[in-house]
Amino acid sequence: MRGAVIHAPGDVRFEDRDDPKIEESTDAIIRMSATCVCGSDLWDYRGINPVEKPTPMGHEYVGIVEEVGADVHTIKPGQFVIGSFFASDNTCAICQAGYQTSCIHRQYVGAGGAQAEHLRVPLADGTLVATPDVPDHSMIPSLLAASDVLGTGWFGAVAADVGPGKTVAVVGDGAVGLLAVLAAKQLGAERIIAMSRHQPRQVLARQFGATDIVTERGDNGVARIKDLTDGLGAHSVIEAVGTQESMMQAIRSTRAGGYVGYVGVAHGVTLPGEELFYSHVHLHGGPAPVRRFLPELIELIWNSQIDPGKVFDLMLPLDQVDEGYAAMDTRQAIKTLLRP
Amino acid sequence: MRGAVIHAPGDVRFEDRDDPKIEESTDAIIRMSATCVCGSDLWDYRGINPVEKPTPMGHEYVGIVEEVGADVHTIKPGQFVIGSFFASDNTCAICQAGYQTSCIHRQYVGAGGAQAEHLRVPLADGTLVATPDVPDHSMIPSLLAASDVLGTGWFGAVAADVGPGKTVAVVGDGAVGLLAVLAAKQLGAERIIAMSRHQPRQVLARQFGATDIVTERGDNGVARIKDLTDGLGAHSVIEAVGTQESMMQAIRSTRAGGYVGYVGVAHGVTLPGEELFYSHVHLHGGPAPVRRFLPELIELIWNSQIDPGKVFDLMLPLDQVDEGYAAMDTRQAIKTLLRP
Repeated sequence: MRGAVIHAPGDVRFEDRDDPKIEESTDAIIRMSATCVCGSDLWDYRGINPVEKPTPMGHEYVGIVEEVGADVHTIKPGQFVIGSFFASDNTCAICQAGYQTSCIHRQYVGAGGAQAEHLRVPLADGTLVATPDVPDHSMIPSLLAASDVLGTGWFGAVAADVGPGKTVAVVGDGAVGLLAVLAAKQLGAERIIAMSRHQPRQVLARQFGATDIVTERGDNGVARIKDLTDGLGAHSVIEAVGTQESMMQAIRSTRAGGYVGYVGVAHGVTLPGEELFYSHVHLHGGPAPVRRFLPELIELIWNSQIDPGKVFDLMLPLDQVDEGYAAMDTRQAIKTLLRP
Repeated sequence: MRGAVIHAPGDVRFEDRDDPKIEESTDAIIRMSATCVCGSDLWDYRGINPVEKPTPMGHEYVGIVEEVGADVHTIKPGQFVIGSFFASDNTCAICQAGYQTSCIHRQYVGAGGAQAEHLRVPLADGTLVATPDVPDHSMIPSLLAASDVLGTGWFGAVAADVGPGKTVAVVGDGAVGLLAVLAAKQLGAERIIAMSRHQPRQVLARQFGATDIVTERGDNGVARIKDLTDGLGAHSVIEAVGTQESMMQAIRSTRAGGYVGYVGVAHGVTLPGEELFYSHVHLHGGPAPVRRFLPELIELIWNSQIDPGKVFDLMLPLDQVDEGYAAMDTRQAIKTLLRP
């Protein structure tokens, strides 16, 4: 088969790779219906994460099950399935508590490289969720969004204790931030402040439910949030970037007793303990346990109650994957969907 | 009147001070029934917090109301009252959410120096809670504990989401840590692991409800907690020290999806963002909003359901306050009660 491999920062190639095979009896092999480029893939593309050797890329996927191992019982060939970037048994105490991305048997699905024609998914019964039927093509972008960015934005909103009557601020206007806006709306937030300085993203944020847009960043962004909240800060702030500046912006935009849900993969962040202590915020986040939310998210998409697929503003054939990276790197695209 | 004043690290003097007076119409003046020395006072006594000028000390107090300002309506002269280290209006949005120590009008009561014969308490109606009657002398230590250390340990347990069926670990065996054990017991924890290497404190921890004692610290302490919890870590960990080592010990002793409640006043702590991200813990803490819990805690004490006063293992006349500091500094005493 063919798939995307990064050779160096800025150098993603679509090339021949070995076909994935069943390696463990709990594996499944899927034929990709669609995959995409993630904001976190850009950490490698931009050389912020080191690229030490040619590495298969991609960890978001929807597809048709082609083959399953002998110990896979609920997932069956022919099903259309969605999974998350970490495989999980979905039975251990950590999974049962809803933290499948910290499953005691977790494996990184992305190690197989999902930007490819086929993918091996470990722990298939625990990891994959089948849709009620093979979906119409028009629904595929939204189902693919559920594989990571929707589930991640949703977890950010849940971690930030979003609910009715709350004022919510979202730091970050990438796909995750935009879908955190959608999640906040679905979870009943009264007011949703999207922090974005990019007009097309502001438009999408409004479509997803943002009631206010704040274009300032850093201290000025914090001041604007305070202005909009009687000087107190938001009840709930979702951090969807992962830098020192964005984390501090999130913490400082939150009122005492409020909640920060942080889902941007932390890079070079150190939190000042004393400031955190006196801030009185709740802090929770990490790699989103997308699997926890998949059944609910699939149902919302299946019933056309949400349309998270709108974050894909660039659709390319899979063999043009390098263009997908370049467009996201230069912020010409919010998110690139790739069709084999 | 006379009261304790710190002049330099290690130099606490009991000396003449001006009598406190009603300064704002919302003030009350109380005559001290008992006060005490706090673990956080030791930060000054040990010179870790700078002592820049002679400073009145103490922020824990119970006493009889002597006088109230014109705008004090619920608190009345003659009442026996308990308050916390921060005065709060108890009506603002932050107070109503239960974070009175971040009240928009908060004032540090300790600025007046509670290790003294009298104390001015600002925002008396919001800050003070009266007991049903003037208590018997035997109850005063427990009521005094509610002024800070009990409320702080309780908040730590609440912030750590302690509840039935949970395994709880407590980092720190000072009065706050020991009372966090008591709180965890009251809140229904199934298993309570006290981390302590001091035999008298271990005994008290057991009396308060600890089911296990771990004497190791740092990485070894974390390993012991993992051993005791199927390799996963505790559901809830209460941090009651405030150092880098104790915070990391708390975070690393918590299972993915678990909760760290941190109430040790942070000193020189920086949290590594990436480790925190992948830890999947919930982090919440800060200056305990003791006022939130006072009515409930007073009721538990009044009905003899809890006996937090046991943390006072040294009782001294107020004029021997310097001995009280010295005994706690050398860990000869857990906590010193001072009687005017």
